[in-house]
Amino acid sequence: MTIDFKQDILAPVASDFATMDKFINEGITSKVALVMAVSKHVVEAGGKRMRPVMCLLAAKACGADDLEKHRKLAAIIEMLHTATLVHDDVVDESGLRRGRPTANATWNNQTAVLVGDFLISRAFDLLVDLNDMVLLKDFSTGTCEIAEGEVLQLQSQHQPDTTEQTYLNIIHGKTSRLFELATEGAAILSGTPQYREPLRKFAGHFGNAFQIIDDILDYTSDAETLGKNIGDDLMEGKPTLPLISALKNTTGEEHEIIRRSIATGGTADLERVIAIVQSSGALDYCSLRATEETDAALNALNALPDSEYRQALINLANLALHRIQ
Amino acid sequence: MTIDFKQDILAPVASDFATMDKFINEGITSKVALVMAVSKHVVEAGGKRMRPVMCLLAAKACGADDLEKHRKLAAIIEMLHTATLVHDDVVDESGLRRGRPTANATWNNQTAVLVGDFLISRAFDLLVDLNDMVLLKDFSTGTCEIAEGEVLQLQSQHQPDTTEQTYLNIIHGKTSRLFELATEGAAILSGTPQYREPLRKFAGHFGNAFQIIDDILDYTSDAETLGKNIGDDLMEGKPTLPLISALKNTTGEEHEIIRRSIATGGTADLERVIAIVQSSGALDYCSLRATEETDAALNALNALPDSEYRQALINLANLALHRIQ
Repeated sequence: MTIDFKQDILAPVASDFATMDKFINEGITSKVALVMAVSKHVVEAGGKRMRPVMCLLAAKACGADDLEKHRKLAAIIEMLHTATLVHDDVVDESGLRRGRPTANATWNNQTAVLVGDFLISRAFDLLVDLNDMVLLKDFSTGTCEIAEGEVLQLQSQHQPDTTEQTYLNIIHGKTSRLFELATEGAAILSGTPQYREPLRKFAGHFGNAFQIIDDILDYTSDAETLGKNIGDDLMEGKPTLPLISALKNTTGEEHEIIRRSIATGGTADLERVIAIVQSSGALDYCSLRATEETDAALNALNALPDSEYRQALINLANLALHRIQ
Repeated sequence: MTIDFKQDILAPVASDFATMDKFINEGITSKVALVMAVSKHVVEAGGKRMRPVMCLLAAKACGADDLEKHRKLAAIIEMLHTATLVHDDVVDESGLRRGRPTANATWNNQTAVLVGDFLISRAFDLLVDLNDMVLLKDFSTGTCEIAEGEVLQLQSQHQPDTTEQTYLNIIHGKTSRLFELATEGAAILSGTPQYREPLRKFAGHFGNAFQIIDDILDYTSDAETLGKNIGDDLMEGKPTLPLISALKNTTGEEHEIIRRSIATGGTADLERVIAIVQSSGALDYCSLRATEETDAALNALNALPDSEYRQALINLANLALHRIQ
């Protein structure tokens, strides 16, 4: 079965999604022209807005009727996500994201750093307006963990001894935590605290699967499907799961090539590294792990009543997994 | 009369200040070693901790007895201040701050951006723990304005047509707003909302004076007294008040030299620019404006009852002004 994002995932919340999108644009309003221009540029460069969609679906799956607050929360989450992308692009010195010039490339690093700061602050400002202390605490703690995950990733760059556990800590912070906030936040605002834990588990495992798949694609995809070049992670000496697994599965020269590639970065050995990652069974292991994480995500959803919204969340998890199938 | 920071300003809140300092160190605790190392480095590089001192003095001046919450707030403010410095140093590509290597110089831009993000998030996380919605709203709005001030400054770089009003908007955002948060926050936590407005005015005008003085010193000081080099602002083409005022007071060749220096940046004409800033009366005007702002700050304090704490705030404003006397 082919899953269609618009039809099988977005449709049940399409009208709330459209209203949410307007709210993002209101949120980035500023008296400072440069703040507006950059914010508009980066927000418009957004992709499928998966996090807001997940938030709205989770709200409906909790039985929420009026999504007014959830729409605001979904917009806030997308703003936080955009802010981290803007800073990530500075950190990674990226010139393109999803085929469009990044903020640091269009303007400069300075502008990107400061507008990223503005987006974080504005997201918190809008969050405070939702007037929910439990929600606020979840988000303030969560954003700390996101930043820590990003720094842990930086700390692990060029470190061939990075363990799978450290890798999981990194991707939980940099990717899964925000998905968790999107669904946990929906449960909190819906007044259904009993669904907070299962939705957090769903989103956490979904995020892990999503990131593992992204890291697989960095060794198997091309620019067209992913919007980034094959070998980007290797270039930066990032010890992602394909390399960690390849190190486990190899000895001798092959092992040394992977170690050295992580330690030095660069793509001089890219073709050999790709060959080793494939022949060593590392990609098979990564696919298995992504499938396990997806299964765990779907499992967690059993705690929620059956509905078209829960089904859309299931479809989303399966669609993500289809990227490597 | 010579004002001594320790004796005449810090002394009345010295013990609360010491406890506050410990709280900053607890606040920057993280499981990620690199987060800890960088946070410790930048927090220890702190100067007089003027903002926390002001917060504690304002609390006592409001009649607060137990400063437990205020100490936490003071620490949060210093963390926010540190975060903006860390990002500023990335933006300005600074290698030294107060004679110590910056985070971007010691580690790299990437680390500085992400640890700055962590400090902002942690500051908000600790702020949420204070469990006061009015305080939270003040801070979430305030940090947006701070970021906007920073971007406005960037937008005005190399713009010789920048007006004095735009300059005031810039320094209100980048400097005065955090001073305002420090004192307003103290009034909110003290349960004395009637002092919020006068304390905000005090801190706002104090901040303006403080920044104008800083901008004067960039054309009159030397590295030893300021910890930065003369001509730093000119180097970056920043249209600060000394240059805006010099443009108003000059015509012909002198006027053109200043315009060109702002437009191009660099210090090729530094000596001539300094001579023009001095001979045109621009520095006199800046000193007058700093004095007026200080007077307005002191005036606002009249709304508070006389106390040794209010006196210490008066001393602080006078000490800042003494830097150019």
